[in-house]
Amino acid sequence: MRFSSKVQKCGLSPMRKFHPFAVAAEAKGKKIYHLNIGQPDVKTPPAFFDAIKKFEQPVLAYAPSPGLPVLIDAIQDYYDKLNMHFDKSEILITTGGSEALAIVLQCILDDGDEILIPEPFYPNYNTMTRTCGASIHPIPTSPEEGYHYADRAKIEKEINEHTRAIMVTNPGNPTGVVLTKEEMRMIVDVAKEHDLFLIGDEAYREFVYGGEALQSFGEFDDAKDNVIVVDTVSKRFSACGARIGCLITRNKELLGQAMKYCQSRLSVATLDQIASANLYTVGPEYFAAVREEYKKRRDTVVAKLAEIPGVQCKCPGGAFYLMAALPVDDADKFQMWLLEEFDDNGDTVMFAPGEPFYGTPGKGKNEIRIAYVLEQEKLERAMDLLALGIKKYNETH
Amino acid sequence: MRFSSKVQKCGLSPMRKFHPFAVAAEAKGKKIYHLNIGQPDVKTPPAFFDAIKKFEQPVLAYAPSPGLPVLIDAIQDYYDKLNMHFDKSEILITTGGSEALAIVLQCILDDGDEILIPEPFYPNYNTMTRTCGASIHPIPTSPEEGYHYADRAKIEKEINEHTRAIMVTNPGNPTGVVLTKEEMRMIVDVAKEHDLFLIGDEAYREFVYGGEALQSFGEFDDAKDNVIVVDTVSKRFSACGARIGCLITRNKELLGQAMKYCQSRLSVATLDQIASANLYTVGPEYFAAVREEYKKRRDTVVAKLAEIPGVQCKCPGGAFYLMAALPVDDADKFQMWLLEEFDDNGDTVMFAPGEPFYGTPGKGKNEIRIAYVLEQEKLERAMDLLALGIKKYNETH
Repeated sequence: MRFSSKVQKCGLSPMRKFHPFAVAAEAKGKKIYHLNIGQPDVKTPPAFFDAIKKFEQPVLAYAPSPGLPVLIDAIQDYYDKLNMHFDKSEILITTGGSEALAIVLQCILDDGDEILIPEPFYPNYNTMTRTCGASIHPIPTSPEEGYHYADRAKIEKEINEHTRAIMVTNPGNPTGVVLTKEEMRMIVDVAKEHDLFLIGDEAYREFVYGGEALQSFGEFDDAKDNVIVVDTVSKRFSACGARIGCLITRNKELLGQAMKYCQSRLSVATLDQIASANLYTVGPEYFAAVREEYKKRRDTVVAKLAEIPGVQCKCPGGAFYLMAALPVDDADKFQMWLLEEFDDNGDTVMFAPGEPFYGTPGKGKNEIRIAYVLEQEKLERAMDLLALGIKKYNETH
Repeated sequence: MRFSSKVQKCGLSPMRKFHPFAVAAEAKGKKIYHLNIGQPDVKTPPAFFDAIKKFEQPVLAYAPSPGLPVLIDAIQDYYDKLNMHFDKSEILITTGGSEALAIVLQCILDDGDEILIPEPFYPNYNTMTRTCGASIHPIPTSPEEGYHYADRAKIEKEINEHTRAIMVTNPGNPTGVVLTKEEMRMIVDVAKEHDLFLIGDEAYREFVYGGEALQSFGEFDDAKDNVIVVDTVSKRFSACGARIGCLITRNKELLGQAMKYCQSRLSVATLDQIASANLYTVGPEYFAAVREEYKKRRDTVVAKLAEIPGVQCKCPGGAFYLMAALPVDDADKFQMWLLEEFDDNGDTVMFAPGEPFYGTPGKGKNEIRIAYVLEQEKLERAMDLLALGIKKYNETH
């Protein structure tokens, strides 16, 4: 019995690779500070749980395939407040942003097609693309330039006859890079001129620290047929476990194709949709407080990194990740050493080694992604452990 | 901009096709009795809502990609009680049975591959198969034989070099056909001998009306590498809106491939998993009552059909559907006429026309699927409307 050639080209999550070694280290009594995963520690607004507790229907029935009207209305209203108007029919509710991405890619990619994505990028994009028979064509960036990719020449150089779409995570995971309005305009123009879809994964939209207005590729309504926005409540409301996202586009044909997928999986979880709709009643003070907290954390991480000799890191503008180049030979080996050989008073630290975030072989070997999802005091300790680890690792290697 | 050639081969749900006409009929004041959809009217056990109301964690975090241990344990225990043992690692929690099916097919099908499915079959299998670049090769059946397909010669005749798997829904949707233990054994043997996967979609396992023990292809542990069971809480507990299912197999390599998909979509909704685990505390009296109710309904539908001249229907053994051949030229045209032209004291009836359940072009034209998801009195009225409709339709056509 054979398996699909496409799934065989996919790999397991690189983020989970160190899990057994972390378990073993903990079994030996080590305490691990986790900077390796994007699970925020911020409380989910009670509005979510309140709505669920109020549910009184006797039968937990299927929701409509495109989503529950109450949630579609809430999302439409959220975008209206950001000065972007979408028809209700232009918003399809999905099981997390992940399903929205998977549906979009399944709709637009064929065997041999390519999708342009700035590297480093979220590694799950690989599985989603390869299972369509397509591949990611990376737009190269460098740590020295702060992973900046919004350069017309740099992007256009990579477009070829196989290119079907440009996909960007903005604000960026893993880099934290935030596009300016002018850069977004330029990318939209490139997509239009080359007849490409432009997919904006905007999961981290609220997490921008320069005081700027919230942005979306959805603003560019002169590119109705090109732009696809992927959104989710996961990070916005620290509700990752709700698995509620959406696919937004003004491209009617794409909506029609996507609906085939929506119908084939019947519906998205009913209660999570109802509860997520209620999340949108949360006021701006919630976001202001969360933003302030993450901004402080980012500043802590960047300041601590600046004190470590040989580390390369430009202060990123958003999300709750950053990439940094370390003065070590191999971040993967270094991580394993931190788990197996190193401790400081019984403590050690985990990050995500950079290589799996790259599409170009060999790149990212000395880079790491840091997720600043720990509160201030723990974050400082984690960064001190990283600094001490680098010093000791280089003394012994 | 182009769309995937695979998604273009898919269609929208045939079950939704009549929806706008139903809305129009209702707008004119008609009352419609719905025998067309598989949404049970049975109450969801309060155990589901109780568990959700007790959830007290401040952050609604991602669950592990293969599923929450509490739910995996509950499912393992459920199967242990049916005398089938699965390791915890052999149970992957999915977003409904639909996701389990989609993952399995993505893992095992390549472009040009075929999967054998007895027809008539659940139409969503088409989208799930075509998006893999593969196709359904139907095993033909007939209304005269009560849609019986468990015949070695009939099945083996359809196997060719492209065949990768046999998939059966047991008990059957749309036919209600229930396999005997001997028939299951034979199908397992065929799969083993021809080196095929055998996928059992067992969403309706509890809905058998002959007093027989509950069955599963998972019982055949001599076919470890062949058998894949797809299961769900949707119908078992009338919890369709929870979107909780699972993929069960002893095939380690398949589990490894499937895990790539599980990780790429991160996790299944956390609260729905916790609540679904609690559903498994429901006692046998729940199932006995539900089974009794559906059995009565089945008997009502079959008895009423027997009274209509020219209708062909053998009493099916399970699920809450049956297929019947009507003495009309075209069930599709007849359905439209029932919505647009017919009423009896303002009432009319909907069913699902049979053609979209077939893979062989032209088959099923005068057949319909009836979902007996209405309580007794409404069901009787719906069946009387069907009888009257057939009579009047044939007088005018």
